[in-house]
Amino acid sequence: MKTQYYTATSLDGFIATEDDGLDWLLQLGEPTDSSYPGFIAGVGALAMGSRTYEWLLQHSAEIAAQTGSPWPYSLPAWVFTSRALRSAPGADIRFARGPVAHAFDDIRRAAAGKNIWVVGGGDLAGQFFDAGLLDELIVQVAPVTLGRGKPLFPRRLAAPPLRLTAVSRMGSGMVELRYDLPASAGRGPV
Amino acid sequence: MKTQYYTATSLDGFIATEDDGLDWLLQLGEPTDSSYPGFIAGVGALAMGSRTYEWLLQHSAEIAAQTGSPWPYSLPAWVFTSRALRSAPGADIRFARGPVAHAFDDIRRAAAGKNIWVVGGGDLAGQFFDAGLLDELIVQVAPVTLGRGKPLFPRRLAAPPLRLTAVSRMGSGMVELRYDLPASAGRGPV
Repeated sequence: MKTQYYTATSLDGFIATEDDGLDWLLQLGEPTDSSYPGFIAGVGALAMGSRTYEWLLQHSAEIAAQTGSPWPYSLPAWVFTSRALRSAPGADIRFARGPVAHAFDDIRRAAAGKNIWVVGGGDLAGQFFDAGLLDELIVQVAPVTLGRGKPLFPRRLAAPPLRLTAVSRMGSGMVELRYDLPASAGRGPV
Repeated sequence: MKTQYYTATSLDGFIATEDDGLDWLLQLGEPTDSSYPGFIAGVGALAMGSRTYEWLLQHSAEIAAQTGSPWPYSLPAWVFTSRALRSAPGADIRFARGPVAHAFDDIRRAAAGKNIWVVGGGDLAGQFFDAGLLDELIVQVAPVTLGRGKPLFPRRLAAPPLRLTAVSRMGSGMVELRYDLPASAGRGPV
């Protein structure tokens, strides 16, 4: 069981524009040899921040057109938020507030031996890191730069460095990089 | 003849810490299979910003210990600066101010058919891009995140996207990504 932050990023380290736009990513289409099917098969539960959740709600029509369902996940999903948000129809959503460590046992139990996917955003992944609960970074580097936007991972994680475990091309322009976090990583905000 | 921005970057898109620190990079050592010897063999002239130049001057003792010379380049180097800076001993330095396009013909002539290396920083590379004078991005992605720092490339370059031309591992933890810029790139700041 691992906690994995799996996300696409621009080459310059942004997961969305400042207004949460993903047009730069969606224009590229789904790569023919995406790692997603293999990845999601190993996942048992999801964690996401409120912005990621709201993005999914706002784009439910497009998501339904593409996947057949307005909510694209069948797995239980924890949404970390300090605000009251509506529930997505047909989705297994649990709202949580406060430190991610408090919800972690519940998420792990729901994952039932499979992995936990931190969907985003970067700060939520950072909170898992701060708590010493993040095991792996899996990033798909898109062939674009944004110049500004929502940061991939707003933390310093440098000494010791990450451990590169895999490099693969996806489609014509994406590169997926996989890293294990060092065993000592996290445990206290930087 | 191409104009190439060749640089190391953190996974989250920073080429230095906010105070121009490179400890996160230098701790990794020189990768055994670095692309640098092959790269520099194709270069005929350098362009750099004033911060990059001053970093090299300030670290001349370490550079001399490593390379035998306080200035590590035998090629003519243009330093773009609006300030008066001292010349590095034994170096072929030309100071330039104003738009990069104004100096470009001189740099190209000095390169004598070989490539022009934009050493850094990110904003100088961006100025070459703005002027439609940048052909290639070659980045070595280090297995670290910095969270904040000097941006890799403070520009939006997304539609059309970059064209990924090569992916290679360097040493145990670095990944080099090479991209050609789309033919229409630049020509006007974003």
